[in-house]
Amino acid sequence: MRAVQVVGYHRGLELTDVPQPTVQGPFDVVVKIGGAGVCRTDLHILEGQWAQKSQVTLPYTIGHENAGWVAAVGSAVTNVGEGDKVIVHPLITCGLCRACRSGDDVHCTRSQFPGIDTNGGYAEYLRTSARSVVKLDDGLEPADVAALADAGLTAYHAAAKAARRLGPRDTCVVIGAGGLGHIGIQVLKALSPARLVVLDRNPDAVKLAESIGADLGIVADGGHVDQVLALGGAEVVVDFVGEGGSTAEGLAMTKPAGDYHVVGYGENLNVPTIDLISAEKNIVGNLVGSYNDLCDLMELAARGLVTLHTQRYALDDFQQAITDLDEGRVRGRAILVP
Amino acid sequence: MRAVQVVGYHRGLELTDVPQPTVQGPFDVVVKIGGAGVCRTDLHILEGQWAQKSQVTLPYTIGHENAGWVAAVGSAVTNVGEGDKVIVHPLITCGLCRACRSGDDVHCTRSQFPGIDTNGGYAEYLRTSARSVVKLDDGLEPADVAALADAGLTAYHAAAKAARRLGPRDTCVVIGAGGLGHIGIQVLKALSPARLVVLDRNPDAVKLAESIGADLGIVADGGHVDQVLALGGAEVVVDFVGEGGSTAEGLAMTKPAGDYHVVGYGENLNVPTIDLISAEKNIVGNLVGSYNDLCDLMELAARGLVTLHTQRYALDDFQQAITDLDEGRVRGRAILVP
Amino acid sequence: MRAVQVVGYHRGLELTDVPQPTVQGPFDVVVKIGGAGVCRTDLHILEGQWAQKSQVTLPYTIGHENAGWVAAVGSAVTNVGEGDKVIVHPLITCGLCRACRSGDDVHCTRSQFPGIDTNGGYAEYLRTSARSVVKLDDGLEPADVAALADAGLTAYHAAAKAARRLGPRDTCVVIGAGGLGHIGIQVLKALSPARLVVLDRNPDAVKLAESIGADLGIVADGGHVDQVLALGGAEVVVDFVGEGGSTAEGLAMTKPAGDYHVVGYGENLNVPTIDLISAEKNIVGNLVGSYNDLCDLMELAARGLVTLHTQRYALDDFQQAITDLDEGRVRGRAILVP
Amino acid sequence: MRAVQVVGYHRGLELTDVPQPTVQGPFDVVVKIGGAGVCRTDLHILEGQWAQKSQVTLPYTIGHENAGWVAAVGSAVTNVGEGDKVIVHPLITCGLCRACRSGDDVHCTRSQFPGIDTNGGYAEYLRTSARSVVKLDDGLEPADVAALADAGLTAYHAAAKAARRLGPRDTCVVIGAGGLGHIGIQVLKALSPARLVVLDRNPDAVKLAESIGADLGIVADGGHVDQVLALGGAEVVVDFVGEGGSTAEGLAMTKPAGDYHVVGYGENLNVPTIDLISAEKNIVGNLVGSYNDLCDLMELAARGLVTLHTQRYALDDFQQAITDLDEGRVRGRAILVP
Repeated sequence: MRAVQVVGYHRGLELTDVPQPTVQGPFDVVVKIGGAGVCRTDLHILEGQWAQKSQVTLPYTIGHENAGWVAAVGSAVTNVGEGDKVIVHPLITCGLCRACRSGDDVHCTRSQFPGIDTNGGYAEYLRTSARSVVKLDDGLEPADVAALADAGLTAYHAAAKAARRLGPRDTCVVIGAGGLGHIGIQVLKALSPARLVVLDRNPDAVKLAESIGADLGIVADGGHVDQVLALGGAEVVVDFVGEGGSTAEGLAMTKPAGDYHVVGYGENLNVPTIDLISAEKNIVGNLVGSYNDLCDLMELAARGLVTLHTQRYALDDFQQAITDLDEGRVRGRAILVP
Repeated sequence: MRAVQVVGYHRGLELTDVPQPTVQGPFDVVVKIGGAGVCRTDLHILEGQWAQKSQVTLPYTIGHENAGWVAAVGSAVTNVGEGDKVIVHPLITCGLCRACRSGDDVHCTRSQFPGIDTNGGYAEYLRTSARSVVKLDDGLEPADVAALADAGLTAYHAAAKAARRLGPRDTCVVIGAGGLGHIGIQVLKALSPARLVVLDRNPDAVKLAESIGADLGIVADGGHVDQVLALGGAEVVVDFVGEGGSTAEGLAMTKPAGDYHVVGYGENLNVPTIDLISAEKNIVGNLVGSYNDLCDLMELAARGLVTLHTQRYALDDFQQAITDLDEGRVRGRAILVP
Repeated sequence: MRAVQVVGYHRGLELTDVPQPTVQGPFDVVVKIGGAGVCRTDLHILEGQWAQKSQVTLPYTIGHENAGWVAAVGSAVTNVGEGDKVIVHPLITCGLCRACRSGDDVHCTRSQFPGIDTNGGYAEYLRTSARSVVKLDDGLEPADVAALADAGLTAYHAAAKAARRLGPRDTCVVIGAGGLGHIGIQVLKALSPARLVVLDRNPDAVKLAESIGADLGIVADGGHVDQVLALGGAEVVVDFVGEGGSTAEGLAMTKPAGDYHVVGYGENLNVPTIDLISAEKNIVGNLVGSYNDLCDLMELAARGLVTLHTQRYALDDFQQAITDLDEGRVRGRAILVP
Repeated sequence: MRAVQVVGYHRGLELTDVPQPTVQGPFDVVVKIGGAGVCRTDLHILEGQWAQKSQVTLPYTIGHENAGWVAAVGSAVTNVGEGDKVIVHPLITCGLCRACRSGDDVHCTRSQFPGIDTNGGYAEYLRTSARSVVKLDDGLEPADVAALADAGLTAYHAAAKAARRLGPRDTCVVIGAGGLGHIGIQVLKALSPARLVVLDRNPDAVKLAESIGADLGIVADGGHVDQVLALGGAEVVVDFVGEGGSTAEGLAMTKPAGDYHVVGYGENLNVPTIDLISAEKNIVGNLVGSYNDLCDLMELAARGLVTLHTQRYALDDFQQAITDLDEGRVRGRAILVP
């Protein structure tokens, strides 16, 4: 089959012909790819940023946001069958460690991450596990939802955790209405009755935020922290940026006893401990969502409560997609369709 | 009555004669002091560290850890009566703001803090509020528990928050077995089934920790982080130190999806956001406990589950107590007894 | 002032002239009534059903769903001032007992209940407490929201408790789309992403339910339990009826590990213990909401997320309102406007 | 191998020779039995009470409380290996349904129950699943802990759920200090700081309760409900009896806003809905514990915080064990040792 592979760092991806993956273990599921999201992390992989961490052996097939149709299943698979339309959770988890047994499979101590440390989905077929596939509603198409598998799932997870403590009188500030942020806004709107205030440096992103559920959009051009403080601050801040000073600003906008959620990353969070204790603030880390989170997100997507703008490319045009993403020409998410 | 007052910064306290406080509002309670804790914060006040923050007008009576007997009550007070033995919550709270109405009175938006921003308890009498007094069990004496009113209450609050997520298979690391830490250890032992590991630089403090409930004590002399990691790390770390590198060490010992509690303070917490998100760790701020926390702590004290070593001084010997504390000659807590 | 009083059981209410209530304690608030809801409980009071329980001395002024304007405040009241538009929580609570200190003021051990055990709001003025008044948004009028003070607040409380565990893949069944039910439906819609299924015997009520947020309405004419089971049952059932067999039906529709909420009452709940344990179901009692619940409900009302149809009567026409309610001629809630 | 089988209802069990179970699926684990608990449910099975519900085909091997050593594992098993000492969770669960993915495997929609609906552990070997085996601490022996696999696990589950809301000022009443109750008491003592009051009709059981952690034991001979009410009632009641009037008594002892846990069963729970709503009480169903609960219980057992008295019988003496249990001659739990 055709597959797009990392053949070295600091050089381009290559389309090549590789053997089609087959069922090897009892829980294996082979998925015919219907859409594979092109993510900024893919650019970072090419730059070698993940080489040390993933320990992956080159060449391998990239792509960690995948959806498609089940092509084959192992002997012990009971939750999906051939032909089922599915989205693929980014991790293959063991199902037996304490985290997996607690529903917190993201912290599985023996997980694999296709597209990062093993073969991914820029290809015609992908091998994953029964524990990773979520059946799609009839109304959803793989290429439309593929990018929800990782970027969307991360946003869902943070927004759903944040929503747990939000009531009608609370204010939630979202920092960043880009790729993750605009999913987060839709999720917060669906799960919480709080007043939703969205900050972004880009006035167009602020307008988009207001059109998809923000009660108030603020262009982050200098006076934004004071504007939020004038509103009384926020019980919860969800920071989808995590760089360029957003961590200090996010904490400053968080009320006493409030939660500041870190989702985006880049800079160091640097805060006097006395500020954390005198206002009793919490800093909440957020990773990608669990299998259950993905099921919940697909339910919201099926009802039209979470939508995503996509820009499709044929698999052969992978380089164009990568270049467009790198040069800021993708609106929403780029999706490769084999 | 006699009262010990701050008359200026960078100079000594002075014992003077001031009018005895009287009931002025319907919820006022006047307490005859049975014991007033001498706290490191009192030293900081004298150094002027609180001047800006408290905006207190000098002279005023210092002392924020108080217990005694009710001497007089306002017209609307129904929860205590003259002669009742009580401990005094450090804050006078309004009872009407959203925080107060939610049981989270520590975040009251109109609170007063006797001993910090209004007259405190290094005196024969103190004026507080019906909302601040907790009746003591017959078996407890004011001078024995006074220091639980603030230092102990802070330790209780952090330990009780930490305990909520701790199960039998979890490990909780306590950093610092000093004043707050040794209360925290006793509380964690009473409230949680987790394995309790205590770190301190002082071998004597480590021994004390083991004698009051720590399952394992570790002298923090260099290899302690690795020792904890060899045990598998901790679901929860409670840091009663907050300086000298303890924040980085505390976060390093925290497992993925774990909680690092800041209680002690001093240094900056400085952490790459990618470390917070890739391991999905939480940093939890902790302030003093609520009125309910103080009631719970007094219940544990009444049962002998939390005890405190005290060193008593006559009120007239306030300078000796201050000096002893400053020079490290107090074992447990110094208590002024008028 | 004019007041409508209970002068005996099994006989009509009487309009009479009584002294206007005045401020007596430091936390008293006198409210000029803008609207007083006429509730089915008022009919039960006249039938003597509450005589034993309330121990009220006749004559007294009836009416426990009140809103209006602050006319006078006690010396210690800081949260409202003369002229403020307010809704009145049905209970006067002490603020000092353990329940009050925990935000759970409904279980105050020393509460009063104006309109039930002391003078209520079918009158020109009502005496209540600073702890009972919630300021209204500029866009809300007392006569429009008065009925939310008790009936609406009970529905809010149950719906908000139920919503805490509801996620996007869950189903919530509401039994009864009448007075309380139709508030409950709006609240569940605002607070939860669950699929909302509403049952009522009255086809018009089912239609109303669908127009205010139910995802599916079912006329309860015999096959309704099977219809819900065919949908897979419900994680949560909220029963606003509590009689005529609804408790057995409600439990039957509840999934294993699900919650069945009792709000309406009348019949006995009679269930084999083996059914509770083999399916691990919970039965959740629900009383009126707390002060915080009322604040949250007013926030939803201010945003137009919860609305109520009312039918206004002059205070002098109280008998007409009572008769209309008794004979089923009130659409929504009857409100007396002095 | 030798196995004790149900060969018909209303007649005795029979020891027979059957083929030793072998690994058939990738997640199968075959356990050499070290101890199999003899449970009252086994008597009920022989009386035919489970025939309809389990739909089991006779003959089959009885016994659902099992522990031993791993004898063989399937190809995909990674959590245990041959020779490991294990206790066996009573259910074989699928790992893929929503309940399993949430850590709530007890509500698995495709579970099997060895000893009830498929071959159990009154035998030399048992086939179970990787998802059902928990490795034992070196200090624990299979025959000592086997009875914790079901009876003990049920008690753990209820006690741990109950403990979640119990603080130092709360009272927890345990009804019944028999087989399940005396495990529940030890668990509540380990997990909660509440005052523990234990009721039993048998004065010896009350004495035992006090020796293993009850703060107060009460012989339930008529005045016990009033005695508990004189103490102020209980925030939580855990009823390990569920018959002979214990449900009405349990609810009567439960404070407003409290939880009444049903664990034992037999009679109908019959309560006026008005009592549930006016005091806002909750009735909480309890089934056997999850895999995680069993891991937690084994941790407490390893530390000596939960112990169980056992009376051992050779497998060949199964009839004696059954008879002794039926005639009340077993102290603690009867255990068959092959």
